[in-house]
Amino acid sequence: MNSLKQHAADPAMTGFRPPAIPDVQVRGFWGERIDAVADRTVHILYDRCLAAGMFDQIDPSRPVPELRLKFHPYPDGKLNTVNAQMFWDSDVAKVIEAAAYALYRHKDPELESKIDAVIDMFARLQQPDGYLNSWYIRMQPGLRWTNLRDCHELYCAGHLMEAAVAYYQATGKRQLLDVMCRYADHIDATFGPEPDKIPGYCGHEEIELALVRLSRQTGEQRYMNLAKFFIDARGQQPHYFDIEAKKRDPGERYQHGTYEYNQSHLPVRQQTKVVGHAVRAMYLYAGMADIAAEFGDDSLTKALQTLWDDLTTKQMYVTGGIGPAAANEGFTDYYDLPNESAYAETCASVGLVFWASRMLGRTPDRIYGDIMEQALYNGALAGLAADGAKFFYENPLESRGGHHRWTWHSCPCCPPNIARIIASIGTYMYASSASDIAVHLYGESTARLRVANTAVTLEQQTQYPWNGEVGITVQVDAPTSFALCLRIPAWAESASISVNGAFFDNKDNRGYARIEREWRPGDKVELRFAMEVRPMHANPKVMQDLGRVAMTRGPLVYCLEGIDNPEGLQSILVPKSAPGAVTSSLPSLGNAVAIDIPVLRESLDAWGNALYSTKTPDLKSSTARFVPYHLWDNREPGEMLVWVRSQS
Amino acid sequence: MNSLKQHAADPAMTGFRPPAIPDVQVRGFWGERIDAVADRTVHILYDRCLAAGMFDQIDPSRPVPELRLKFHPYPDGKLNTVNAQMFWDSDVAKVIEAAAYALYRHKDPELESKIDAVIDMFARLQQPDGYLNSWYIRMQPGLRWTNLRDCHELYCAGHLMEAAVAYYQATGKRQLLDVMCRYADHIDATFGPEPDKIPGYCGHEEIELALVRLSRQTGEQRYMNLAKFFIDARGQQPHYFDIEAKKRDPGERYQHGTYEYNQSHLPVRQQTKVVGHAVRAMYLYAGMADIAAEFGDDSLTKALQTLWDDLTTKQMYVTGGIGPAAANEGFTDYYDLPNESAYAETCASVGLVFWASRMLGRTPDRIYGDIMEQALYNGALAGLAADGAKFFYENPLESRGGHHRWTWHSCPCCPPNIARIIASIGTYMYASSASDIAVHLYGESTARLRVANTAVTLEQQTQYPWNGEVGITVQVDAPTSFALCLRIPAWAESASISVNGAFFDNKDNRGYARIEREWRPGDKVELRFAMEVRPMHANPKVMQDLGRVAMTRGPLVYCLEGIDNPEGLQSILVPKSAPGAVTSSLPSLGNAVAIDIPVLRESLDAWGNALYSTKTPDLKSSTARFVPYHLWDNREPGEMLVWVRSQS
Repeated sequence: MNSLKQHAADPAMTGFRPPAIPDVQVRGFWGERIDAVADRTVHILYDRCLAAGMFDQIDPSRPVPELRLKFHPYPDGKLNTVNAQMFWDSDVAKVIEAAAYALYRHKDPELESKIDAVIDMFARLQQPDGYLNSWYIRMQPGLRWTNLRDCHELYCAGHLMEAAVAYYQATGKRQLLDVMCRYADHIDATFGPEPDKIPGYCGHEEIELALVRLSRQTGEQRYMNLAKFFIDARGQQPHYFDIEAKKRDPGERYQHGTYEYNQSHLPVRQQTKVVGHAVRAMYLYAGMADIAAEFGDDSLTKALQTLWDDLTTKQMYVTGGIGPAAANEGFTDYYDLPNESAYAETCASVGLVFWASRMLGRTPDRIYGDIMEQALYNGALAGLAADGAKFFYENPLESRGGHHRWTWHSCPCCPPNIARIIASIGTYMYASSASDIAVHLYGESTARLRVANTAVTLEQQTQYPWNGEVGITVQVDAPTSFALCLRIPAWAESASISVNGAFFDNKDNRGYARIEREWRPGDKVELRFAMEVRPMHANPKVMQDLGRVAMTRGPLVYCLEGIDNPEGLQSILVPKSAPGAVTSSLPSLGNAVAIDIPVLRESLDAWGNALYSTKTPDLKSSTARFVPYHLWDNREPGEMLVWVRSQS
Repeated sequence: MNSLKQHAADPAMTGFRPPAIPDVQVRGFWGERIDAVADRTVHILYDRCLAAGMFDQIDPSRPVPELRLKFHPYPDGKLNTVNAQMFWDSDVAKVIEAAAYALYRHKDPELESKIDAVIDMFARLQQPDGYLNSWYIRMQPGLRWTNLRDCHELYCAGHLMEAAVAYYQATGKRQLLDVMCRYADHIDATFGPEPDKIPGYCGHEEIELALVRLSRQTGEQRYMNLAKFFIDARGQQPHYFDIEAKKRDPGERYQHGTYEYNQSHLPVRQQTKVVGHAVRAMYLYAGMADIAAEFGDDSLTKALQTLWDDLTTKQMYVTGGIGPAAANEGFTDYYDLPNESAYAETCASVGLVFWASRMLGRTPDRIYGDIMEQALYNGALAGLAADGAKFFYENPLESRGGHHRWTWHSCPCCPPNIARIIASIGTYMYASSASDIAVHLYGESTARLRVANTAVTLEQQTQYPWNGEVGITVQVDAPTSFALCLRIPAWAESASISVNGAFFDNKDNRGYARIEREWRPGDKVELRFAMEVRPMHANPKVMQDLGRVAMTRGPLVYCLEGIDNPEGLQSILVPKSAPGAVTSSLPSLGNAVAIDIPVLRESLDAWGNALYSTKTPDLKSSTARFVPYHLWDNREPGEMLVWVRSQS
């Protein structure tokens, strides 16, 4: 509690809360994406859940389905047969959540009635004691709470809580919220440090941040305390997962070997290295950040700062993709960032955005804001096709032409995850405290915010991220004093700020320009970020990127695609400083900005048939076209490459 | 038969036969390796066969063993449990063959009596009808000849035939030779194009070349004809493996999908692409080359030339390693030569040497001699530790430090294979025809040969491959006219030849200097090959080697090892032309020649903690030490790299 008081003395530390989704009207770049989600993706998500048989598992009025189900066809037309998944409740929950956000975009009574029907299934499925999990009620009855480590039981509850809050906020309908409060009450009565309760926690984190959200919506402090318990209990000795496993079978071997997989190898405050399953790690850290903010817990914040540094300086792709390995869907060794085999699950980058946005909850800091933007525009956004109809699960940074978007996935966690974050993007753009408004992300939009007990409307006019000019008009009913905190991205090597045309002399404030003044109706801030083409080098410890550069412009990472560069991507040698780069607008990719760069290309013309030779390959001049990474595989299939060989 | 007559008109086409093993006394580089095999490896091989339980399977006086056996421990001390293998007869056969060659090196009554006992087991196991296969006699009785495709039955017979010939030649003992002639008679009575015989052939080629060897030893033409039948029948329609599979189970699915895996997808004369399992392919081509030479079959030679070109210009590592993929232990796509994951089985490079040496049987041609040397000194020789006690199965060209030599392998084909080729290396060094003597490989040695119906002794004095000076003294009883054909390796950009001190003006003859004269006792030829450090580039179609060079010197490919270059191998940038390279002798590696090259090294000193940056990594001057690839992992474990980044 002491720490809370200390923070209160720092005007930037009073806690920043995001606006509600309907309070931000998003247009421009993100507006188009939200429309794709609302018009297409959410309908696809619902249809795929239906086709996969998820509702057959949930609806108590239908026969219990067999374990093996025919599944949606792969892109090659083959039918994929999968087990019904024990975490399907969570996938359906994320669809409900994405649909809730889509309903803000425009009314859609047909969609709403479908979702109502799904919620009704859950309501009918709920047990008299409040318990609600379709797998353990219908597929494996009698085994509830026997394997928290592997079976996603509390994880499913968490996603349903998030869905309940979102759907209530979007529609005013309480059914799912009431259901989930009853379930939360049941969980609260079941888990905790008291001797008569289970001292366990979930192997897949999620319920922690979800309980915070439910608590904030309902005002119920017990939910907040329960979230804190789950975080505090994690990794303590005697280890709950050991106790639980011995009860099941004393000889049971844990398939993942160590508890690093689910971040329970140590109490969370002692963790210094980001390990294990990437999505789990991100959800844990997001929950820890929530609890740190809610309880003013500096010991959690300190651990999170260490983990943040660990992740972002040793284990993150330039795209903001994280978790290089498929084997554990997660982290391996420091600086191990293979490009072609990168797992870099869409959900993991989405999770990184969740974590970053919560780190911004204590104070605006570019360390978090920049990475949030980087992960959002690249590693996460790549997960959804431009038309909203196809998905990436893995996000490699190099492809020889065999990696393509899916119509669906046997583990369909990513599609609804990228859909829900896009559809709620407005809440990541802005935040306000008692005295400050922060603009974390730039984009054409109108935000209704509250600061200094006053309603303030900010209107952003910009074509960001395609160019770096941003106009922000402040609308207040009467002159109001507050600070407007504007993120100055680290990539913007020159940034100019003016207020009503007058130069603003920025004193850097954790990478934010903090403009503290009495704002009057119609005051206008103009930002101008240099949007140069910036070739990035990786730390030489990243072996896979040695001698290579990644082209970036603004927040976007670029890549080469075969369709634009048909003679092979690996033979291209870019100059280290990319002189002569020219931008143009690509109608085939929604007028995205492409970059053309004069390059050298190793020529095969004079090489002959030899496999090895002492002669150096000839070089000829050429031009390479780079397109935004998040837009790759939206045209013809072919090769793709982010880290391009550089001239030395 | 016409083609044979045409060849007779070309003095270089009369057929070159290698000397018998005891006719070449090998000293120097290869002499040390033969000593290691004779003094250590063959004993280890025998002991490992014993420990694996192979003799329990073979000896009919012991109980039939269980299918699951404890096996030799892995390097990490864990016990490896494997199935008894249906191809163990072949592993034991290769041990007998290697032991036979070792007995030439020095008498070893204890080893000889052990081998005699093993041979006696096979003799006692042989069935009244001549059939001999421990798996089908003891482990799966009643199923003989029911799955030629997968079960290595004729392959085992082939290796036993090779062992029989070798052991008879080395010891004069006929027991195994007689056993294998009876078995060959049985096979000849069982297989063939006649309606009452099985029209099949083995899924793993080997018996073809073995029957040629048995025929040459015994003078039995039926064995030669049977070898030709197996080659001619391969891949014909209706496909024998289809017929056989339908008999076993009409619904059976072939695990490898296509018959390319065992090179039976097409009749062999129609094959133009090297495909499938690498060792199988090499053994097939070696057998084809034998038959081409024996029958003067130009249609086979033409196919082999096409396949040779296919392999060596599109599918071969610079080490002479072949077969990049573990999945099929074989070939994938053209120019797909990943370094870290290279399978490049030791046996496959050994097989390439077999094939190359047989291509030289029709005429000396550097196209074959150079590759034979390249595969022998690098991809094959790496398979045996310098002390003869440990083995590589896979031979990657890059390791982050986790790839090490085995004390044994669950599929122990490679250790006896590299042992037998080393112990018989003299037969690969020389060959003679009616009019010519060819020196294919250089190395300190004395060879007794016959040419022009006269005994000729060649004495090579050289420290090859450590330097390029070779003296060859010709000893004849009386002046004798013949041509001495000396391979001038393509890598020797300057080579000088003198005869008794007089310059010899070499007219290139398929890459061999052909010195045709009347040779007198004590005539001396001196060769001097430039042994420059030669940085090799790969064809730019090999993506994995783009922007990289491999250092070579003479026939040896070099690599970097962590023990010599402790600051990381991937940060080293070598100049394209390697100016300033200095050689030195390494006592820790048996006085092998090391190469020190001034390089640049990407420095981490000024990089800081950033994972990505627009700044270019600093370069500092340094020196990198390269050691011969075949000697890697003989000192401290650590990183290894063949293809080193080059300055552009």
